[in-house]
Amino acid sequence: MAGRALSEIARLLNLPLKGEDVEIAGVNTLEGAGPHELSFLANPKYSDQLAATGAAAVIVRPEHAGDVRRALVSENPYRDFGRALALFAAPQGSWRGVSPLASVDPTASLAEDVTVYPFAFIGPRVVIGAGSVLFPGCYVGEDCRIGSGTTLYPNAVLMAGVEVGDGCIIHPGAVLGADGFGFARTAAGIEKIPQVGRVSLGDKVEVGANSAIDRAALDTTRVGSGTKIDNLVQIGHNVRIGQNSLIVSQTGVSGSTRIGDNCTLAGQVGVAGHLRIGDNVTLGPQAGVARDIPSNRVMGGSPAVDQGTYMRTLALMPRFPELFRRLSSVEKALAAQNAEHPKED
Amino acid sequence: MAGRALSEIARLLNLPLKGEDVEIAGVNTLEGAGPHELSFLANPKYSDQLAATGAAAVIVRPEHAGDVRRALVSENPYRDFGRALALFAAPQGSWRGVSPLASVDPTASLAEDVTVYPFAFIGPRVVIGAGSVLFPGCYVGEDCRIGSGTTLYPNAVLMAGVEVGDGCIIHPGAVLGADGFGFARTAAGIEKIPQVGRVSLGDKVEVGANSAIDRAALDTTRVGSGTKIDNLVQIGHNVRIGQNSLIVSQTGVSGSTRIGDNCTLAGQVGVAGHLRIGDNVTLGPQAGVARDIPSNRVMGGSPAVDQGTYMRTLALMPRFPELFRRLSSVEKALAAQNAEHPKED
Amino acid sequence: MAGRALSEIARLLNLPLKGEDVEIAGVNTLEGAGPHELSFLANPKYSDQLAATGAAAVIVRPEHAGDVRRALVSENPYRDFGRALALFAAPQGSWRGVSPLASVDPTASLAEDVTVYPFAFIGPRVVIGAGSVLFPGCYVGEDCRIGSGTTLYPNAVLMAGVEVGDGCIIHPGAVLGADGFGFARTAAGIEKIPQVGRVSLGDKVEVGANSAIDRAALDTTRVGSGTKIDNLVQIGHNVRIGQNSLIVSQTGVSGSTRIGDNCTLAGQVGVAGHLRIGDNVTLGPQAGVARDIPSNRVMGGSPAVDQGTYMRTLALMPRFPELFRRLSSVEKALAAQNAEHPKED
Repeated sequence: MAGRALSEIARLLNLPLKGEDVEIAGVNTLEGAGPHELSFLANPKYSDQLAATGAAAVIVRPEHAGDVRRALVSENPYRDFGRALALFAAPQGSWRGVSPLASVDPTASLAEDVTVYPFAFIGPRVVIGAGSVLFPGCYVGEDCRIGSGTTLYPNAVLMAGVEVGDGCIIHPGAVLGADGFGFARTAAGIEKIPQVGRVSLGDKVEVGANSAIDRAALDTTRVGSGTKIDNLVQIGHNVRIGQNSLIVSQTGVSGSTRIGDNCTLAGQVGVAGHLRIGDNVTLGPQAGVARDIPSNRVMGGSPAVDQGTYMRTLALMPRFPELFRRLSSVEKALAAQNAEHPKED
Repeated sequence: MAGRALSEIARLLNLPLKGEDVEIAGVNTLEGAGPHELSFLANPKYSDQLAATGAAAVIVRPEHAGDVRRALVSENPYRDFGRALALFAAPQGSWRGVSPLASVDPTASLAEDVTVYPFAFIGPRVVIGAGSVLFPGCYVGEDCRIGSGTTLYPNAVLMAGVEVGDGCIIHPGAVLGADGFGFARTAAGIEKIPQVGRVSLGDKVEVGANSAIDRAALDTTRVGSGTKIDNLVQIGHNVRIGQNSLIVSQTGVSGSTRIGDNCTLAGQVGVAGHLRIGDNVTLGPQAGVARDIPSNRVMGGSPAVDQGTYMRTLALMPRFPELFRRLSSVEKALAAQNAEHPKED
Repeated sequence: MAGRALSEIARLLNLPLKGEDVEIAGVNTLEGAGPHELSFLANPKYSDQLAATGAAAVIVRPEHAGDVRRALVSENPYRDFGRALALFAAPQGSWRGVSPLASVDPTASLAEDVTVYPFAFIGPRVVIGAGSVLFPGCYVGEDCRIGSGTTLYPNAVLMAGVEVGDGCIIHPGAVLGADGFGFARTAAGIEKIPQVGRVSLGDKVEVGANSAIDRAALDTTRVGSGTKIDNLVQIGHNVRIGQNSLIVSQTGVSGSTRIGDNCTLAGQVGVAGHLRIGDNVTLGPQAGVARDIPSNRVMGGSPAVDQGTYMRTLALMPRFPELFRRLSSVEKALAAQNAEHPKED
């Protein structure tokens, strides 16, 4: 990380600086930061760490500006810390150009400042926008379209016809546009239904390491702008996901399901096929979804139910042995009563 | 997609054509199809869409042949639509040959019309049959044998000694033949048990994107002909899977388990090690299997039980709070009775 | 496998040999072994197979040394069988050298006997220790450090700054050091929090095929020496895992969680973020962990509870319908009693 003046950081983030200027070499946690590092306080729970921090400066909310030697004053310290980080973040690779060790089809159209590392493969009629970077081992199949400012990390795979918007990040080993899982059982065995559709991502989409998004059977599997997909996630054929949704690691979404905007699917969630999930839906970890979910719901469990119901059910689970014991006691008491007061018939 | 006469499609699929001939440019859903596209009706539930479709022709069962302008009459419209799709499906890559940018060991034996893309690696003594295609970034380790008409998509990995039959598809990033997870805990820590076995696939097997099938500890991990494995599936060492089974995404099968023919394991299923699963077994999504399962069973839940039992248990789950309330009422009523009619002893 | 004298194997493993010498060509199960193969008996349950085995020799505990024609006598037959296997295990690739088809930055520092296969990429300032082997398609980003005797199998990815110790195995397609899943929701959408930390593995660590270990947001995601990670596992940013732990396939560990030494996480386990899991903790298959766990616990279920409680709860699950029936009977009996003995009020 190259150093920057704190005053310059304040100017770039458009935040008031309280305290004298200093050279900042990097960013760190309150606990770990040294005398040339910038830190932040997002959670007031940790405000007692402000007194002890060795940080040169801290991004804080206005009420904490007086608690540190130097403060950058922010209404959203976590977000502004992210922006500060971006000033110091080294890129994954510093090399620029189109390597003679890459394989680029002569009919592909690359904007002038596209970077293509060695051993990347770019097929016929591919179009790649300005400033995009393709790391080693990437495969970009025939007729793919990649926007500007997009990064394909090592060994990312875009099968034929995949479209990726601007400012996207495809993490290592992610596979976009492999065949959906479509088969017909017949008397003679299993016949493959050819998958001839595509995958299309909006802008600022991330796809995590070794995740897979299948091409549609006929039309298009779509992921909306701003949606972020974590590692090892499976998105089936014909799925449509809206904008600004978060799909956490190892989640699977089955074919033809639609998920709205601003949803959060926690880790290891499973969603069955052909469902409609609304906007602003949150699914807890390991949830299993087999029914449509309207907008603005928080659900948990497998099969998923309203989060409140799920939490109450969980609380009762360890009490099953007690339940059986109490029921047996009641039955015995009743039997004893009936022995004393036999029914007349 | 290049166009074809509808009459030619009828002839190739061996289906009667009702209506005059027309040029077909592609295939689509009933809703999406235009005046030069072929569609299909598989589910009679959607038969009311026949009146409104813009499709040039529709593959239908005999009873619906009169409902559309042009019909291809079929006993299995879904399967025949798949066959029609195959006529129009463009391959993932149109290039053919053995690239000088590939690394092919001189002792490897390739049939004359094998295609090897740039940056594919083929090790010593590998044998590859006629018409097989290896995309960029594939790795084929020493002594592997690949049949004819098989495709390895980008970055697929076959470790040493893996055997793949005819007509198989290994999707991008799939790994066949990595070490099984075999370790011995000792006082000194964990010692690796070397894994020296192999992986063998039958014919017409598919392995999904980023799935992993481990080599056996000593002998062979086997997947039978016609079995289709989806994305991000884990198959442990020494596992044997029969023919024409479907293993859906993110399922894991632990070491030494045997699974029969014509099984379906839905998404995110987990099967413990050293089990025997019979033929024609269906496991619902997220099922967890810790015991042997005889043939012809449908199971669900974790741990998996008979599907009927599972569905009944699920239906009762939301009623636990009610159960506790009702039991408390009974206990109070009994206590009140006993206060009125104290037991003589 | 090249043959070895049984007496030489006995000497190398430091085990007493009972019986005359013989040439051993390989290793196999008791059932499968032929007259030039070595086998083992680890589980006394299978001791009746000793009489029938065709093996040339068997590694057995002292009490079984008289039951076979030739015995290697061991206190830990499974571990010593592993050691015998290691004598016969062929490496995944026999080629050695630095391929002119690899891309090695001139500022990278490789010990003299490092092997780099074709199409591997090694970035600026990378340091690789003696005897390490990089298979085709590996990517080693800027400033990575790899110890000695470490293997990177095909298409393994080490993003910038990743550190891997001595004697590690990174299986095909594993990704170390991709961005953690860190985002801030704002009114304008989702903003990425840059991830600028690293991944560091100790010695003798294995990372399975297509697994992912994310770089820390700020500091370091750590995996301790001797820990073995299976295929398709997700390790989130800032996680710390101790030594000699086993993380089985398709498990996910969320960000900032710490796991101790000698733990075992079975397959498809999910662990939430920011938790502390002690030493010697065992989590059963598909467990879901949302709370801290002290050392020396065995837990199961989702949410995970003590294994005994989990097993008792599981045993009661199929009895829910019975529970509802019995409660209804009790309620009816009480109602009948009250009709006969009405409460005086």
